[in-house]
Formats: sequence, C-alpha cells, structure tokens
Amino acid sequence: MVEVRTRDVFAAMRPELDRVESRVEAVSEVDFPVVSSLVLDLVRSGGKRLRPLLLLLAGRAYHYDLDRLVTAAAGVELLHTASLVHDDTIDRSGLRRGKPTLNAVLPAGAVILLGDYLFAQSARLAAATENPRVVAIFASTLADICDGQLREMFFAHRLDQSRDEYEKRIYGKTAALFAGSAEMGALLGGAPEPHVQALRSYGADLGMAFQIVDDVLDLREGTQRLGKPAGNDLRQGTVTLPTMLYAARLSDVDGAAARLRSVVAGEDDGDNGGEMLGQVVAEIRASGVLEEATMAAIAFADQAKRHAEIVPDLETRDMLIDVAEMAWARRA
Amino acid sequence: MVEVRTRDVFAAMRPELDRVESRVEAVSEVDFPVVSSLVLDLVRSGGKRLRPLLLLLAGRAYHYDLDRLVTAAAGVELLHTASLVHDDTIDRSGLRRGKPTLNAVLPAGAVILLGDYLFAQSARLAAATENPRVVAIFASTLADICDGQLREMFFAHRLDQSRDEYEKRIYGKTAALFAGSAEMGALLGGAPEPHVQALRSYGADLGMAFQIVDDVLDLREGTQRLGKPAGNDLRQGTVTLPTMLYAARLSDVDGAAARLRSVVAGEDDGDNGGEMLGQVVAEIRASGVLEEATMAAIAFADQAKRHAEIVPDLETRDMLIDVAEMAWARRA
Repeated sequence: MVEVRTRDVFAAMRPELDRVESRVEAVSEVDFPVVSSLVLDLVRSGGKRLRPLLLLLAGRAYHYDLDRLVTAAAGVELLHTASLVHDDTIDRSGLRRGKPTLNAVLPAGAVILLGDYLFAQSARLAAATENPRVVAIFASTLADICDGQLREMFFAHRLDQSRDEYEKRIYGKTAALFAGSAEMGALLGGAPEPHVQALRSYGADLGMAFQIVDDVLDLREGTQRLGKPAGNDLRQGTVTLPTMLYAARLSDVDGAAARLRSVVAGEDDGDNGGEMLGQVVAEIRASGVLEEATMAAIAFADQAKRHAEIVPDLETRDMLIDVAEMAWARRA
Repeated sequence: MVEVRTRDVFAAMRPELDRVESRVEAVSEVDFPVVSSLVLDLVRSGGKRLRPLLLLLAGRAYHYDLDRLVTAAAGVELLHTASLVHDDTIDRSGLRRGKPTLNAVLPAGAVILLGDYLFAQSARLAAATENPRVVAIFASTLADICDGQLREMFFAHRLDQSRDEYEKRIYGKTAALFAGSAEMGALLGGAPEPHVQALRSYGADLGMAFQIVDDVLDLREGTQRLGKPAGNDLRQGTVTLPTMLYAARLSDVDGAAARLRSVVAGEDDGDNGGEMLGQVVAEIRASGVLEEATMAAIAFADQAKRHAEIVPDLETRDMLIDVAEMAWARRA
C-alpha cells in the first residue's frame, strides 16, 4: 500500500523531475572527455532524487515559477552529489550503490577537484535563482554538511557519545539538506513565512527519519541490496543509533561488550576476514535494537507529517505525507 | 622605488584590510577546538591579501558601502584559502610559505572537509552581499579555479602543450579570482557597466602577470625565500612558461633535452637526491628564459595598467597602477 502510494508521488512529479535531470546533466559536463563521461555516469547513477522532489513539492503548493524551482532542485541534487564524491574519497570507498566510485578509477587529487567542480556548478545553479535567501540557505547547508561529516570523523571509534551528538551528526550529514531543500522550494513558491518554517521543519524531521533508517539498513541488509557489505558503518568505526542502543543494553562483564568495543575500535578490520564484525552484526540484529531504532525513525516521520499539515494545497499535502511514510517503509 | 609605492598601497588600505582580516577570522571558527586553532593558524598565515585589496580598490573608486565590500573581500580571501587547502592535499604538500600545511598534521579526509567548510563559509559571505551578480561571479570563479587545477593535473608530465593551454590553466588557477575580485568590487561600488568590465580585465591581466612571475620565481629562488625548494613545479611535472620557452630552444640531439624530458616525466624525483632536477634548473636559469618569461609578465601588467585608466578617481587609479607594477617587481 505504502509502496504504491510513494511510487505515485514520483510518477506524478515525473515531468518536473525529468527537467531537473536534464539540468543536472547539462551542468555536469567537464572539458576533459574521459572525466566528463565519468562524472556523467556518476550523476546518472544517482538515487531517487529525493531532495529535488522535496524542493519541487514544497514549491508547487504555492505560486511557483517552475523554471526557478527546477534550477534550485538541480542545485541541491548536485550539492548532494558533490558531497558524496568527497565522502567516498574520505572513506576511500570503492563502491557506492553497487557501482565503482570515481576513487576506483581516478587519483584522489582528481576526485577532490571533481567534487569541488560539482560544488561550483551547484553554487552556480543556486545563484541563478537570483534569490538571496535561497543562496544563503544553500551556503549554510553546505557548512552544515561539512560539520556533520567532521563530527562523524572526530567521533569515530568512540562508544562514549550521547544521542544528542548522534542527532547533531545526522542532522548535518543528511537532514540539513532535506530541510534546506524544502525551505528553498517554499521560498521560491512565495509561501508565507510560517509555511516556509513549517516546511523546513518537515524536511529536517524527514531527513532525520531517513538517516536513522539508513543506519538500520546498514546493519540489517547485506551487499545484495545495499551494494556494500552489512555493518559497513561499524567497520569504519561510525557509531549509529542502533549500535548506541545496543551498547546501552550490554553489561561490562559480557563478552559481547568486549567484542563490540573491539570492532568499534577498529581492531577487527575486514582484512582479517572480519569474523568478529560478522558476529557483532548478528548480535545486534538479534537484540531487537533495529526495531527500537526504527521506532525512533517513525517518530521523526510522524513529526514531519504534522508539519506538512500547514500546506493548503490538498494534493501536495498528501504527497508530502506519502513521502514521509516512505521514509521508514522503504527497504534498501 | 616600486617597493615603497606598493607598500604605500597596503598602508593606505590598512584599516579596510584589517576589517577584512577580522571578518575572515570570525567565520573560520569550527566547533572542534583542535581543528579550530589549526584553521585559524592557516588563515592567519595567509599571504598579502591581494585579492581582498583588489576588491576593495575596485569598489572604493565608486559609491561603495564599506560593509558589503569587506564582506565580499573576506569571501574571496576564504575562497582562495579553501582552494589552497585542497591544492596542498592534492599535491600532498607538507609545506606552504615555509610553514607546515594541514596535511602535515591531519588525515587527508579531515583536510578535504576543512577545505569544503571554508568553501561553505566563503559562499556564505558572498550570499551575505545579497547581490545576485556577485554570487554568480563567485560561483563561476570557483568553477574556473577547479578547471585550472584539473588542467594542471591532466597536462602534468607533458612537454607537448601549447602556450594557449598554459594560459588557460593559469587563468583558471590564478587570474579568474583576480578578475572576479575586481569585478565584484566594481559591482558593489555601483560602477557603470563598461567600468565593471574594464576592472574585470584589469584583474584578469594582473592575475596572469602574477602567476607567470610565480612560475619564474619557482625556478629562480630556493627554499629560503619561497619556503619550498627551487624547481618544485618541475618536480611535480608542471610545465610552466619558462620551461616551455626553454624546451622550444633545445634541439633533440642535445643532452639537455633528454634531461628535461626525464625530469618532466618524473623519472628524477626528489627521493633520488634530485640531482638531475638541480642540473635542469641551473640550465634553465642560464638560458635566459626567466628574463623572457618576465617580459611576458610585464606585458600583462602593462595591459592591466591600461585597463585601470578608466577609473575616474585619481587616487584609486594610481593605487591600481602601483599594484600592477608590483606584479613583476616583487620577489618571493
């Protein structure tokens, strides 16, 4: 039921999303043929275009100028792509969504520059909206994303972190751009200020829900669905909500606690077969924390739905609510 | 004589430059104490603040709002700093201006993110001018810088490249931000369109002159003045104007041609003592091409001076001309 309805949202918005797609591809061209095709592949292999969808939905509820909405939507998608490119360089990931990353085929320096180039192109699109507030949101969202990624790095391999720290981190990493996308759409649609703020909150809560579900999926599903092995976060020392909930349940005398500490500390890397990692992942799955974390995601999605109620256009409101339900009902 | 006059320009603009400095430092703060002090050190160890100076000068000739000029000037300086941070990561440079780079003390991933964070902060400053054209110039300048750096990477280790390719590269790498800085200043000063274009051209030509002089200095001066060993470009396979001029003079039967090819190809890296590199640098110095390249820089600086003639305010015009003379009269 939920699957059908969310598919409907994408189908309903297909013409606008296709325009975003063309815009993204047009600005991703680089003057170096080899690189150009790699960047285009990368951009085309992108995900569901959720951020552009949010921006378009938030705008269509009001008096939107479609061309500006499409421009801004292409901008947020490219900003997202650029940050993934740098993220993969930082993690030295060879795969994303089951496909080789740029890092698998280009030297690290070239990948850093291509990421910068995509940032530049996304900033050009933001500038092309000629809306100073949109540009300001765009820039501060980039700062928030960096903050989230820096937090992930500096809090890696640490079990002694609060839920508040986790939420700050995933806000920066994911929710900030969801929030910014919805806010930009509402602004470009000329929504009244309380609506702009409500849609921003909608995006933020939706983003939190999405990231928590991602963190659950990382532990629940393996290579086949995610294009990366299960427990990838743990392998990199990234402590997510399920792991935090699990750690809180373990007693210090338990062997499981020692195993978890060892895996988080990076003492059991993939090179040694990652046997202990596999065991810890199994123990986490069996403990019931994945369900508990999913409940936290549902709570965020419910908050998002309540924020969407301000939208006067009924069709758009329903679509926003459907997207919020998709947040936790989806699989990888 | 020239030294005294250019020092005068900086002295005359000191109050405005100090405001830029405070602005740059204020937005460079990061929420992680260790990193924050590193970033602040980095920002403080910056060069002469030439790009902010250009922007301020281009604006002060017209009806400027100092606060907006200072905001934009801080933005271009941070954009420059961010691009240097990524540049050092790409080159894996341990030193810049004789001081350790962030790469010497932080993992590469953290440095990439800090560069992104500085990009974000510079974009926030550009957005704060609330001038859509300034924001657009800012974004397209970032794209030009990436293009220049990508060209440097893809044309490394190649002697078969045209002067046109070299000029495109240094335009992106250096002149684009000089051009953009002068253009932004003129726009924020409310200059008439022909003045905006002339000041943009002034900045572009000045930037070309500066980069050619940098390329000459890289071969002419050693560690003491530059904070890096002589011939650093050659060591990295970067073929600059003096090297191109030198290569054009050599005949294929010459042993010097073989040595140059070998060094450019990276067959004589610093690890082996770099003896051949030292010899090639000495041969380039003796050949007279450094003087020939300097003449090319002077020609660009002269073009810049002619563009400055459009400026009605005499004091500002003189300062712009003094800066253009500094371009080639300076040492490291």
